[in-house]
Amino acid sequence: MKVVKFGGSSLASGEQIRKVFDIVMADSERKIVVVSAPGKRYADDIKVTDLLIQCAEAFLEDKASKELEVELVLQRYQIITDELSLTSDIVNQIKRNLLAALNRDQTDRAQYIEAVKACGEDGLAQLVAAYFSFRGAKAHYVNPREAGLIVTSEPGNAQVLPESFAHLNRLKERPGIIIFPGFFGYSQSGEVFTFSRSGSDITGSILANAIQADLYENFTDVDAVYSVNPNFVEEPKEIKELTYREMRELSYAGFTVFHDEALIPAFRAGIPVQVKNTNNPQAPGTRIVSTRENANGPVVGIASDNGFCSLYMSKYLMNREVGFGRKVLNILEDLKITYEHVPSGIDDMSVVLRQDQLNPEVEQEILTRLKQELAVDEVKIEYDLALLMVVGEGMRRNVGTTARASKALADAEVNIEMINQGSSEVSMMFGVKVIEEKRAVKALYEEFFVRSEYITLR
Amino acid sequence: MKVVKFGGSSLASGEQIRKVFDIVMADSERKIVVVSAPGKRYADDIKVTDLLIQCAEAFLEDKASKELEVELVLQRYQIITDELSLTSDIVNQIKRNLLAALNRDQTDRAQYIEAVKACGEDGLAQLVAAYFSFRGAKAHYVNPREAGLIVTSEPGNAQVLPESFAHLNRLKERPGIIIFPGFFGYSQSGEVFTFSRSGSDITGSILANAIQADLYENFTDVDAVYSVNPNFVEEPKEIKELTYREMRELSYAGFTVFHDEALIPAFRAGIPVQVKNTNNPQAPGTRIVSTRENANGPVVGIASDNGFCSLYMSKYLMNREVGFGRKVLNILEDLKITYEHVPSGIDDMSVVLRQDQLNPEVEQEILTRLKQELAVDEVKIEYDLALLMVVGEGMRRNVGTTARASKALADAEVNIEMINQGSSEVSMMFGVKVIEEKRAVKALYEEFFVRSEYITLR
Repeated sequence: MKVVKFGGSSLASGEQIRKVFDIVMADSERKIVVVSAPGKRYADDIKVTDLLIQCAEAFLEDKASKELEVELVLQRYQIITDELSLTSDIVNQIKRNLLAALNRDQTDRAQYIEAVKACGEDGLAQLVAAYFSFRGAKAHYVNPREAGLIVTSEPGNAQVLPESFAHLNRLKERPGIIIFPGFFGYSQSGEVFTFSRSGSDITGSILANAIQADLYENFTDVDAVYSVNPNFVEEPKEIKELTYREMRELSYAGFTVFHDEALIPAFRAGIPVQVKNTNNPQAPGTRIVSTRENANGPVVGIASDNGFCSLYMSKYLMNREVGFGRKVLNILEDLKITYEHVPSGIDDMSVVLRQDQLNPEVEQEILTRLKQELAVDEVKIEYDLALLMVVGEGMRRNVGTTARASKALADAEVNIEMINQGSSEVSMMFGVKVIEEKRAVKALYEEFFVRSEYITLR
Repeated sequence: MKVVKFGGSSLASGEQIRKVFDIVMADSERKIVVVSAPGKRYADDIKVTDLLIQCAEAFLEDKASKELEVELVLQRYQIITDELSLTSDIVNQIKRNLLAALNRDQTDRAQYIEAVKACGEDGLAQLVAAYFSFRGAKAHYVNPREAGLIVTSEPGNAQVLPESFAHLNRLKERPGIIIFPGFFGYSQSGEVFTFSRSGSDITGSILANAIQADLYENFTDVDAVYSVNPNFVEEPKEIKELTYREMRELSYAGFTVFHDEALIPAFRAGIPVQVKNTNNPQAPGTRIVSTRENANGPVVGIASDNGFCSLYMSKYLMNREVGFGRKVLNILEDLKITYEHVPSGIDDMSVVLRQDQLNPEVEQEILTRLKQELAVDEVKIEYDLALLMVVGEGMRRNVGTTARASKALADAEVNIEMINQGSSEVSMMFGVKVIEEKRAVKALYEEFFVRSEYITLR
């Protein structure tokens, strides 16, 4: 039994929904279909979820444009309905639900927006179910409340409650295909609350766990997870298989195929995840598993992210001072600043953090407190660093990986500002200046994915 | 004006003291001579300081052997006196002083031992002054109390008090050569307190600062500071010049020529330090300075130390948890455990610390607290790590240093357990298993000192 999730771009038009139908029907194991809201049809298009937020805000502020905003949303569904040759019944039903959400009590603004936002997925699930029935499939829409998907009352960051899994497990026993809207659940008092970003991925992952699925298929618009950012390297290699840990390390540094935390429920139940392309379902895609054979060398992917800075401080005899590092972290915690890494020398330490947490005021406070409370000799902040992650389960056992990576960077004349290796067994981190990020990523890719293949072929 | 300090092996016999005389007289700038207690004459010999500690303990416990212990100490001075053809007056004087110390009040045991220990340097300074006079030099012994070397009342860890420098500055005006005992000063109430290890180095460094010496010469029994541990590499290269920062980083990881903190007073006054060999004063030795020209490649020395362990912990979503790292350091601080480095991944962190701080009980407490208070998913301790330091001021500006170091280690089949680079600008740290320490150090030495020269010569 499989749970299949389709992303917004896989559901943006009638043509796309036809592909979805074909994919689901091609495998009788595909039991639960999780749908997103209609996504972008072209680069400048607006996602339905964003239209709905605009709509909610227009109603909250009682703007003159509010009726027009409703029309914009409904038009998207109308176009799809027309493309699929469905009757207007489904659009009328979506309209009734949307107006009910828009006309509800506005006292709790956050709660109001939540209820409106959820209409995107909910409406499309109803539409998809209608289309599946129209095509003669035995399929029906299931509402998360009716199914028992109970979540915490955190707007935009709802967490699934444990009792949900037993409720959702019973979906297995329903006949036919279940079309389930992603992105939201209901609080114990029956109010809508949405998950964080990649919310439909979370719904799919929860359902896969609940029914103990054999596979969680995640359909998107790329053939596979790439081994490196396609903006940096042309036609990068696809990753056939990677582990949850590798996925998580890659996600941390900018891999955006999907948000790794969405996988937690599937991960906890040990359910493999298959990333596939709605527009090319024959492509094998990428499989995310608990453990894998290390067949293709030590490195599975290279990721990078920027917007980091390094807070450097030095003090003679720092390493003799008990509690120094702890006090530095305390000061940052007071200022609600989170950090990523803490490389240290004998008389100096650096704290690497995301620089969007700083502004001139906060920066001044950090510098002042470090000087006053810890009497540092020197303190400075270096901005615009990028962190590169070289990820692979095979790395720990491979003696030469560090040498290959650092030689590749040296040959590309990239100065390594920082190395963090030794805690994670599946990744190695290099810090470089942002202006060298792309060159550094390319050099590492060449080393581990191009040159190594060349050596193999000879 | 120069301050010249001689270590214990440079003063272990009459023959050695003749060398000291020749060295001091060869340069009229050599104004203050700081002497240690007589050191070892051969590998199994016992240092006078250790004989004095035995002696003090025998008196404290009123052992039958106590008179014999006194004889053992005085014999050492008698032999030197005979070798130098001095009269027995000086030994009688040393005996009177030693017995006065041994017969003093024993209420404060630590204070009692301090007073007895200091007799080693004090007696030898008197003996050396007598010999210099005997040879016709204008030289005299100066007692630290009379000179105004005032220290804190911390047995074995006395710290110089600021007023000392003005007192000691007046030594400049005294005629002739001053023979000054190293290792101890006097508290404000007039009691003897000794410095920590390398105590005579500290005395020399304080005096160099106080008289604003042009140079602080430190005579020992090696021609120079070596670029690597001579137990690991045969005939290693000598370092001609290194900076204070380089010296400190090398000292941290096992360089034992002298204890870097002994240099602080000279360092603060910007006084260069020259390490020289009493047995080969023609050899240029090693100069330690504030800044140096980077003439010989990025690396000046390679050091290593072992006895480290790594406390590893992992927890899913650790990097989202504000304060996690700080709480770990708090727990260690509660248990009075100091740490060296904290490499971290996304969901894991390691704390590298000296393993002699742990025992099964403490280890159990750490593991229990990390599990209970921080709910870590996994925690384990890996013992027997060595830390390797590759040190050099030129490193930061040199793109390929990391690559060369890690490739050298890979070629020697050394697995790098950990890299810490990015905070210190003058060092790079690698963690390896202790069993691979020697092989790793040799590989790095070959890379930076042997192979690079070969390339230059071609």
